[in-house]
Amino acid sequence: MFTPPESSPRSPSDQSPESAPEIPSGFHALTDVSGFAAANGPWFEKIENGRAIRGFRPGPQHANALGIVHGGMLAAFLDSAMGTAVWHALGRRAVTLRLSLDYLGPGRLGDWLQAEGEVIGHDEHVAQVRGRLYGRRHEVLAGLGAFALLSRARTFETRS
Amino acid sequence: MFTPPESSPRSPSDQSPESAPEIPSGFHALTDVSGFAAANGPWFEKIENGRAIRGFRPGPQHANALGIVHGGMLAAFLDSAMGTAVWHALGRRAVTLRLSLDYLGPGRLGDWLQAEGEVIGHDEHVAQVRGRLYGRRHEVLAGLGAFALLSRARTFETRS
Repeated sequence: MFTPPESSPRSPSDQSPESAPEIPSGFHALTDVSGFAAANGPWFEKIENGRAIRGFRPGPQHANALGIVHGGMLAAFLDSAMGTAVWHALGRRAVTLRLSLDYLGPGRLGDWLQAEGEVIGHDEHVAQVRGRLYGRRHEVLAGLGAFALLSRARTFETRS
Repeated sequence: MFTPPESSPRSPSDQSPESAPEIPSGFHALTDVSGFAAANGPWFEKIENGRAIRGFRPGPQHANALGIVHGGMLAAFLDSAMGTAVWHALGRRAVTLRLSLDYLGPGRLGDWLQAEGEVIGHDEHVAQVRGRLYGRRHEVLAGLGAFALLSRARTFETRS
């Protein structure tokens, strides 16, 4: 389940993104997030041709015991990017129903990683989303997911 | 990719688990973890009939914007439990190759959640693992994964 993109874009520091070499141009920190996204951030976003690209630079707090990015952290980041894609394509919040993940290569600490989703089909209730998470030179994680679309008016109620 | 269970069991507080009502009997905190598991812990473990059961009690730092446990956090916790199952069944460290997840119900903040994995097949290189994450009264997440087995002697090297 993803964090809806209700945050206001802001530069990750007092510097503009252009003068802060660690964050690629055009990305803004998601500053209004809470919970898991805040605890495991900062996460960044760029809107390009109406589509959202998420980015982050993993540090030691994202590592597993092997010293590379924890596969669960990668799963969480891609899941969020795919949910954000639903928001931008359909204007609906969504929760994850199914997620299939293929780990293609390691995520290395210190590398800038990006993730994005594409809505490849939907009806009134469910969106099918393809996602990818990648570094500068290689693919890291491929995802395929089904997301339940929440109505705009209805407050989300937990099931069972 | 999971955090190998190299931590030494220890009580989560000065009290024994039995007298600390928030942690069910028999669970010990994983105290020697680092990185993602430490940043998103504390995580607990109980060994029962040679199999590991992981547990944690989600708080606000594990939530999504809807106020329930972030789906990515659930994915990460189950992935780790499934990797731990490989360790206990085969004595081999492992990294996730594929993971298929079905979200069956919400994880609520404050509830005690448990996760466990079962190795349902393997050869020299890959283990097939079934996993479940559940609360006291309902199933939360079902997983099916393939894990690459690392040799005991070889230090893990990142691919590509």
